[in-house]
Amino acid sequence: MARRLLTELTLATMERSGAPYGLVTNAAVATIDGRIVFAGPAADLPAEWHGKEAEGLGQRLVTPALIDCHTHLVHGGNRAREFELRLAGASYQELAAAGGGIVSTVSATRAASEDALFDSASRRLDALLAEGVTTVEIKSGYGLTVADELKMLRVARWLGAERDVRVVTTYLAAHAVPPEYQGRPGDYIQAVVLPGMEQGAAEGLIDAVDGFCEGIAFSVDEMGTVFERASALGLPVKLHAEQLSDLGGAALAARYGALSADHLEYLSQEGVDALAEAGTVAVLLPGAFYTLRERQAPPVAALREAGVPMALATDCNPGSSPLTSPLLAMNMGSTLFGLTPEEALAGVTREAARSLGLADELGTIAAGKCAEFAVWDVEHPAELAYRIGFNPLHRVIRDVAP
Amino acid sequence: MARRLLTELTLATMERSGAPYGLVTNAAVATIDGRIVFAGPAADLPAEWHGKEAEGLGQRLVTPALIDCHTHLVHGGNRAREFELRLAGASYQELAAAGGGIVSTVSATRAASEDALFDSASRRLDALLAEGVTTVEIKSGYGLTVADELKMLRVARWLGAERDVRVVTTYLAAHAVPPEYQGRPGDYIQAVVLPGMEQGAAEGLIDAVDGFCEGIAFSVDEMGTVFERASALGLPVKLHAEQLSDLGGAALAARYGALSADHLEYLSQEGVDALAEAGTVAVLLPGAFYTLRERQAPPVAALREAGVPMALATDCNPGSSPLTSPLLAMNMGSTLFGLTPEEALAGVTREAARSLGLADELGTIAAGKCAEFAVWDVEHPAELAYRIGFNPLHRVIRDVAP
Ligand SMILES: [Zn+2]
Ligand SMILES: [Zn+2]
Repeated sequence: MARRLLTELTLATMERSGAPYGLVTNAAVATIDGRIVFAGPAADLPAEWHGKEAEGLGQRLVTPALIDCHTHLVHGGNRAREFELRLAGASYQELAAAGGGIVSTVSATRAASEDALFDSASRRLDALLAEGVTTVEIKSGYGLTVADELKMLRVARWLGAERDVRVVTTYLAAHAVPPEYQGRPGDYIQAVVLPGMEQGAAEGLIDAVDGFCEGIAFSVDEMGTVFERASALGLPVKLHAEQLSDLGGAALAARYGALSADHLEYLSQEGVDALAEAGTVAVLLPGAFYTLRERQAPPVAALREAGVPMALATDCNPGSSPLTSPLLAMNMGSTLFGLTPEEALAGVTREAARSLGLADELGTIAAGKCAEFAVWDVEHPAELAYRIGFNPLHRVIRDVAP
Repeated sequence: MARRLLTELTLATMERSGAPYGLVTNAAVATIDGRIVFAGPAADLPAEWHGKEAEGLGQRLVTPALIDCHTHLVHGGNRAREFELRLAGASYQELAAAGGGIVSTVSATRAASEDALFDSASRRLDALLAEGVTTVEIKSGYGLTVADELKMLRVARWLGAERDVRVVTTYLAAHAVPPEYQGRPGDYIQAVVLPGMEQGAAEGLIDAVDGFCEGIAFSVDEMGTVFERASALGLPVKLHAEQLSDLGGAALAARYGALSADHLEYLSQEGVDALAEAGTVAVLLPGAFYTLRERQAPPVAALREAGVPMALATDCNPGSSPLTSPLLAMNMGSTLFGLTPEEALAGVTREAARSLGLADELGTIAAGKCAEFAVWDVEHPAELAYRIGFNPLHRVIRDVAP
């Protein structure tokens, strides 16, 4: 048995009961074979651990390891030149309509080898890991052919094998209608999205199915077709919804018991209620809101009021959110969306775990959960959301079950 | 003689002539004793360098080392709790009026030893250095007694001695009226600001004099008194101006031939014209604009039109801009203020050097200037402003004259 005893630390368990942040000073944590068996006041440590060799953490803060639950980390090229263009006044929709935007990333991703995709994504992944991430969701969605979508997912799995991180994959062929199917989204779904889903599922490449429900992408009916097949295959679903307009995507997601609905700037009260009833997580993506200079923030007060869990993620993607810092996502969640620092930290731990269907395994520090911790050189957990562009991570502790 | 020859690189000289960014592919740079003697196409390398031992940089991008020209890096404590409060709705002015805000930092700074101030500031400084900074301006302004202001400046000098960085100090006793002089700004100036300036200048602690010209701080007339003394002592001046309202601070600064006027969200056309005529640099601070959720951006188009040089800086401070990333300041300068990526890079190199009176020494890569370079793992310089929370620095090269 592999045992670990951590002492001389402040604990932010992020459990809902008790103090803000689940804060415990003078705490201890004990783990066996990659599972937490005790987390709480050192004075309550069970007798069998007394006298055991311990690692003192110098009264540093220990939180659950971070989770980035919405990324497009694997992609070819970058869009720095488009960034220059947008500063000249072009909108996201105008750029997309002009054949720029996502199409350029699709071309670069199709042209890239798995090696090249791995190399560029691993640099971005390493930036996440350097801020305490041990779980990252990675979407396909820039291949838009069966072969290229599955190529992206294989690279995502490869990243998980090569780095000390849990990778959760999401099949997002319904991200955009590729140029060769322009004006024929239904044909694209039948010819590419559904067959690719079948094949990817058979190869074990798909942990969940996602789509982009928006005027410039897929309608509610079209996404319904995709979700039907996902459900038939036993795959959980999620949806990019209500980012630029209110199409009722969140309500669709809720009807399919989605893990999450993501973006949600234009979410209506009906949408809020649907998410609450379904237990679907609202994944907020302030990096895209910031980059696109949106004015309408997601209805955080209504989500809070309705008890909808709110996660935060980088949305790391080359167009609307070239963000590789979950700490900055926390700061933006607070500064731009009005989340409290405690909600921001819950958004990259407890609620992010829930949005990936991993609430029983990850996201808080409690007996039975995985032994994955971030150790920070801060005095108070509010500092994690407060600072901008500063990384106070001391170390990550991640014990994988033998 | 210490000679260095760099080859296999793309050069962004940031010189105004020629291509955008002063871009030169297949470039070479030669230095002797910490000074650049050649920078340009490798094909034009003078004959005496042919066959000399060279360091190949793998076709990476070389820019001038970065300059953070406006920081409050030295301070006691942090304001993470205030950040939580502000998320509950309190404004910066309300917090200041309630005795929170800057007063809490003044208390913490007065209570801190030089060792403690050095330790906390060095962590922030190291974050800047990790992004390619070799020159940083550091202000006093949280002591607000003669002894505590000079303590801050001694710590700033100490940081420059301990780290591989050039520290430029600014005396900012006119940052706020301390509680013991509340309602008596004139008395504070006579009893503290002017004597402290005399003493600091005599001890060689002051490179420039600054103030905060705002309704919640000092009036134009009061700042005039401070600038008169600075001029008599031969010290250059600069000013926090037009951040929250238009008091005509920039015009005052221009009348004294200020190095820079900083913030400038509420700058009028008259102010723009005054800066242009005086050759004063506009230092834009998007981190504070972002944190305070301001709506009115500085008049970038008017500044550009008038030919006013625009610098960018972190404004690193514990209240309105806990930002320690010049790369993020560049992204915010583009995203929030509409600077082009080229203007953003010029803002932390060429124009930042000018704002510190160091235009002859630093800020571009040209014969005669200091040999201080940042080497980046990017294909194009626009990527430096494009990415958010990602640090592509490969290494810094800084040769100090023997
Ligand atoms: Zn997305
Ligand atoms: Zn300032």
